[in-house]
Amino acid sequence: MTIRFAILGAGRIGLVHAQALKEVAGAELVAIAEPFEAAAKSAQAKFGGDLRSIDDIAVSEDVDAVVICTPTDTHADLIEKFSRAGKAIFCEKPVDLDVERVRECLKIVDETEATLMVGFNRRFDPDFMALKAAIDAGQVGDVEMITITSRDPGAPPYDYITRSGGIFRDMTIHDFDVARWLLGEEVETVIASASVLTDPKIGELGDYDSANVILRTASGKQCVITNSRRAAYGYDQRIEVLGSKGMVSARNTHEANIEVAGKDGFQSPPLLNFFMTRYTAAYANEIAAFVQSLSEKTTPPTTGEDGLRALEMADAAVKSVETGQAVKLT
Amino acid sequence: MTIRFAILGAGRIGLVHAQALKEVAGAELVAIAEPFEAAAKSAQAKFGGDLRSIDDIAVSEDVDAVVICTPTDTHADLIEKFSRAGKAIFCEKPVDLDVERVRECLKIVDETEATLMVGFNRRFDPDFMALKAAIDAGQVGDVEMITITSRDPGAPPYDYITRSGGIFRDMTIHDFDVARWLLGEEVETVIASASVLTDPKIGELGDYDSANVILRTASGKQCVITNSRRAAYGYDQRIEVLGSKGMVSARNTHEANIEVAGKDGFQSPPLLNFFMTRYTAAYANEIAAFVQSLSEKTTPPTTGEDGLRALEMADAAVKSVETGQAVKLT
Amino acid sequence: MTIRFAILGAGRIGLVHAQALKEVAGAELVAIAEPFEAAAKSAQAKFGGDLRSIDDIAVSEDVDAVVICTPTDTHADLIEKFSRAGKAIFCEKPVDLDVERVRECLKIVDETEATLMVGFNRRFDPDFMALKAAIDAGQVGDVEMITITSRDPGAPPYDYITRSGGIFRDMTIHDFDVARWLLGEEVETVIASASVLTDPKIGELGDYDSANVILRTASGKQCVITNSRRAAYGYDQRIEVLGSKGMVSARNTHEANIEVAGKDGFQSPPLLNFFMTRYTAAYANEIAAFVQSLSEKTTPPTTGEDGLRALEMADAAVKSVETGQAVKLT
Amino acid sequence: MTIRFAILGAGRIGLVHAQALKEVAGAELVAIAEPFEAAAKSAQAKFGGDLRSIDDIAVSEDVDAVVICTPTDTHADLIEKFSRAGKAIFCEKPVDLDVERVRECLKIVDETEATLMVGFNRRFDPDFMALKAAIDAGQVGDVEMITITSRDPGAPPYDYITRSGGIFRDMTIHDFDVARWLLGEEVETVIASASVLTDPKIGELGDYDSANVILRTASGKQCVITNSRRAAYGYDQRIEVLGSKGMVSARNTHEANIEVAGKDGFQSPPLLNFFMTRYTAAYANEIAAFVQSLSEKTTPPTTGEDGLRALEMADAAVKSVETGQAVKLT
Repeated sequence: MTIRFAILGAGRIGLVHAQALKEVAGAELVAIAEPFEAAAKSAQAKFGGDLRSIDDIAVSEDVDAVVICTPTDTHADLIEKFSRAGKAIFCEKPVDLDVERVRECLKIVDETEATLMVGFNRRFDPDFMALKAAIDAGQVGDVEMITITSRDPGAPPYDYITRSGGIFRDMTIHDFDVARWLLGEEVETVIASASVLTDPKIGELGDYDSANVILRTASGKQCVITNSRRAAYGYDQRIEVLGSKGMVSARNTHEANIEVAGKDGFQSPPLLNFFMTRYTAAYANEIAAFVQSLSEKTTPPTTGEDGLRALEMADAAVKSVETGQAVKLT
Repeated sequence: MTIRFAILGAGRIGLVHAQALKEVAGAELVAIAEPFEAAAKSAQAKFGGDLRSIDDIAVSEDVDAVVICTPTDTHADLIEKFSRAGKAIFCEKPVDLDVERVRECLKIVDETEATLMVGFNRRFDPDFMALKAAIDAGQVGDVEMITITSRDPGAPPYDYITRSGGIFRDMTIHDFDVARWLLGEEVETVIASASVLTDPKIGELGDYDSANVILRTASGKQCVITNSRRAAYGYDQRIEVLGSKGMVSARNTHEANIEVAGKDGFQSPPLLNFFMTRYTAAYANEIAAFVQSLSEKTTPPTTGEDGLRALEMADAAVKSVETGQAVKLT
Repeated sequence: MTIRFAILGAGRIGLVHAQALKEVAGAELVAIAEPFEAAAKSAQAKFGGDLRSIDDIAVSEDVDAVVICTPTDTHADLIEKFSRAGKAIFCEKPVDLDVERVRECLKIVDETEATLMVGFNRRFDPDFMALKAAIDAGQVGDVEMITITSRDPGAPPYDYITRSGGIFRDMTIHDFDVARWLLGEEVETVIASASVLTDPKIGELGDYDSANVILRTASGKQCVITNSRRAAYGYDQRIEVLGSKGMVSARNTHEANIEVAGKDGFQSPPLLNFFMTRYTAAYANEIAAFVQSLSEKTTPPTTGEDGLRALEMADAAVKSVETGQAVKLT
Repeated sequence: MTIRFAILGAGRIGLVHAQALKEVAGAELVAIAEPFEAAAKSAQAKFGGDLRSIDDIAVSEDVDAVVICTPTDTHADLIEKFSRAGKAIFCEKPVDLDVERVRECLKIVDETEATLMVGFNRRFDPDFMALKAAIDAGQVGDVEMITITSRDPGAPPYDYITRSGGIFRDMTIHDFDVARWLLGEEVETVIASASVLTDPKIGELGDYDSANVILRTASGKQCVITNSRRAAYGYDQRIEVLGSKGMVSARNTHEANIEVAGKDGFQSPPLLNFFMTRYTAAYANEIAAFVQSLSEKTTPPTTGEDGLRALEMADAAVKSVETGQAVKLT
């Protein structure tokens, strides 16, 4: 059985998902909705499918599932619309930047018994999956302490920062989800510290560029997240997990696997510098997992609930920075 | 302008090239020739195109170029046939295992002014390309000494060994080509040593499983090649190049970029274990380079001449092992 | 000019310092004070010098400096005694576990104008020194975010834990000092989280075995410290420093610099497992730095003030864990 | 029982051995013979012992063993003299550059039943010892193929080159010994290739600066040695051993174990650049092994026979380069 898809939004991430659909067995791209005509036609030329409006897609009988790649502030409305339309839904995080709006939206998903996968691409990165598999295979014993290092090569545009919900809701949210995935227990307490170190303008816009977070579960497991908006050497994405029997770590990916040795030492290339390059395989795997869950009629691996929990942790981090206190999640 | 392709042979490597054609802009798969019906239909279902006979393809006006993926002993005949048919030709190495037959064949290519690319996939591996780029950028100064470590995870089937032309013509031939590519001068002298260490049956079949070769150019640059048919830890493919200003090395690719630390130490996964997995990107880049050379009407990056030279080096290595003498190439 | 030394206490660390004195030019071991006769004689046989009582050493005209290697609870008294006796003093951290007692003691040092070096061995580790030199040379630009990973292979004996002052005063105190050394600004705020994960008995004794700390300076620079009393793979001692222009990191030291590759992957040996083996060079460099400061009549590189600051940070960490609040240092 | 030593020659390597004697339990330095008065007095000041002539030492009843650190052309004579004098002898390689002279000398050693250790320091390097231990523990199964990379940071002075016996007798000789140690079988065939690439003057002096050697045992095991007199990145000393079950490799030692990441990539420091720094521990271990063999009255781990075999291999390599033929050892 082939799952028939529509892509909503043919911007950068929309094209990534269209490419992923092309490569996955059991999926077919039937329609694309994109308001900009040039972008729409270009996407159609590359990936096929009809060009339709979002409203048309909602009533298209030949569409089983949609991939929402529109701007963040439309996510919740579209999830509700397509839940009611009886379509399966894949939506990149976040559902919304406001936790109440997310809860409302998930209620509709629940009532309509819609299938919703909220994309947290990092869970689908091959190296992080290998790390998780090592944990699940008992190679490090009981998980005790996690360190997530997550640094962007550079800050996003100021314009984006003002709409992003702030570093914790935009950037750390991925790390919150990874922490939940790896800790194997819900986080109970969030402690955060944030500064403006790379660009004072970021502070003027009400955001931070450098943050450290400590998460703690009821049983005392802990996770440290360390974020920066500026890593001159590339997109720094590392995880290490200490357990009772040892440690497993996922290392960075360099532009090439070579080394040049000379009188000043041994040099290897910078890290992959862009999230789409770094996580190419993750985006493909993520859509494949969605297709598989639809085919097998199982719950998608990352749900609206996962999106909600990560957002609650982000809110708690903001509060912890503001109050200087450890914040309990409820 | 789109180059219209036919694939001759839809076996394992044929499918790899069909996939590569699908991903390359400017190429279109028009026809597939494959004698086994099931394989032919399966390939068509996945990649499209008509099913035609080789003879039909030779006279098909809608075919600009062919990719020869048939058994080795058909390569020379097919290259001649399609040279005369006026098609551009991509053929995986080798043209033939017999150097005289190769010379004859290349004469036809020459006379018909056909375009022939003989595939040496390693030149198109991203890490090896980065290593070459570092050399070309002068990062190691003048090239002096090269070490190529090239070991298979395990020996091929006995049946294949008897048809392979022996380790130097089957396996080392890739390293001979890499050596020529990196030395930047033609090799003048070949010295080789070979043993049977992993399986006596390989010796009974008249072949070796363990070999070391020293190549030397007229100016005294040297390259060592070390081969084995058994590397328990995976497909070991490394190059290092010492120059007057330093060294550049290309490292192996592991199954995942993780590390597990425990009481016995720090462990990272084995190497990618299969040449098609290890060189996935190389196969795609190779076809892309062929398409590009056709589009731009330039000489393909690896030619019949390259195939001939590598085979001459293999013959010289065989002779060196047999005589215990350094063998000069003419 | 040779500085004439007495060692007070010929236990494990006393012997390390005696060995260091033997190797340092400009130092001479004149006397050893050790109450256990067998230990005293053994030390004398190996390193020479007279056996004298502590009181005798305080009045020995042929002793210029003492190295205090007695139990922690005698440090402050001995520092005061030898300050008054006009001897230069080297004392391993801590001066005392009680911050008020430390302040009192340092007041005596101040009044007597004694020279006091409080040993923080990590500042003298060759790799950490190379990391510091890279920072000082501007290789990473302005320091912004530091991550210190510091994990013991196993917990100390229960008996020691009860006397240790707790994980922050015993173990993290080294990391507090390293953080101060590398941040280049005084720490203003301490946030800490601690759990008992490796052994419930440690919790029953009122201590923790797993801790994360976030330090922040007035300008917003941050340092994360992550501690555990159990790292199955050895003594894990790493530092990484993110700056405006890049990152410098100091890696772990393995038992040997080899790698074994087999069907299960690539394995390198565990880390050096014992602080005296891991920091052998650091202990020697530390004493050499003390001798040098005495010879050149300069302030020792680590002072009583450094000891006090690190202890204040430990106290703040304890308070932060107890209150769930960020604690400001005064 | 303490072994009482005399050092013959207090030059650079003599001082290294004097320091080693100082650190080894069970050894005592009794006398130093050194013709240059300043060097002699300086050595005595640092390490103690009487200053005596070589002739006096040969008849000193309080000397059990000598360490020969005089120029190469005196080694054979001194070995004979002290064999006859009934002293145990440690001599750095080589016994002599002429294989006939070595055979004569070893005959005297044999007749006098003297104990002679010829120093091959690399066997005593901690990393190489760990590699050997992994082989002996069966971690790589049966040894099949070895690659030894051995490159100097720069060529020795021209003056030294003329007296050195050439690259194979001076530099590769260490690798020949390592090969014998690790192969576990005697080498039967030597194939060598050598060039002048780094400095034409070296060629004018009749020597080479770049060489590759293939060694083969009767059972077909092979070892490749790759040498250069110029490695811009430091003293490159690596071994890898492929066996039936995997590979073990010993990696290089860097100046410090740090890494600096910036916009141009990740950089670690150059290699230790000087053989005495790189092999400090090896020199100490070597003397300790000699002292131990004397104490336990066992055969020293490296004998005159080992020195002879390595020299024969060097001679064979020279002959192979000159004739272009594989040379059989007899």
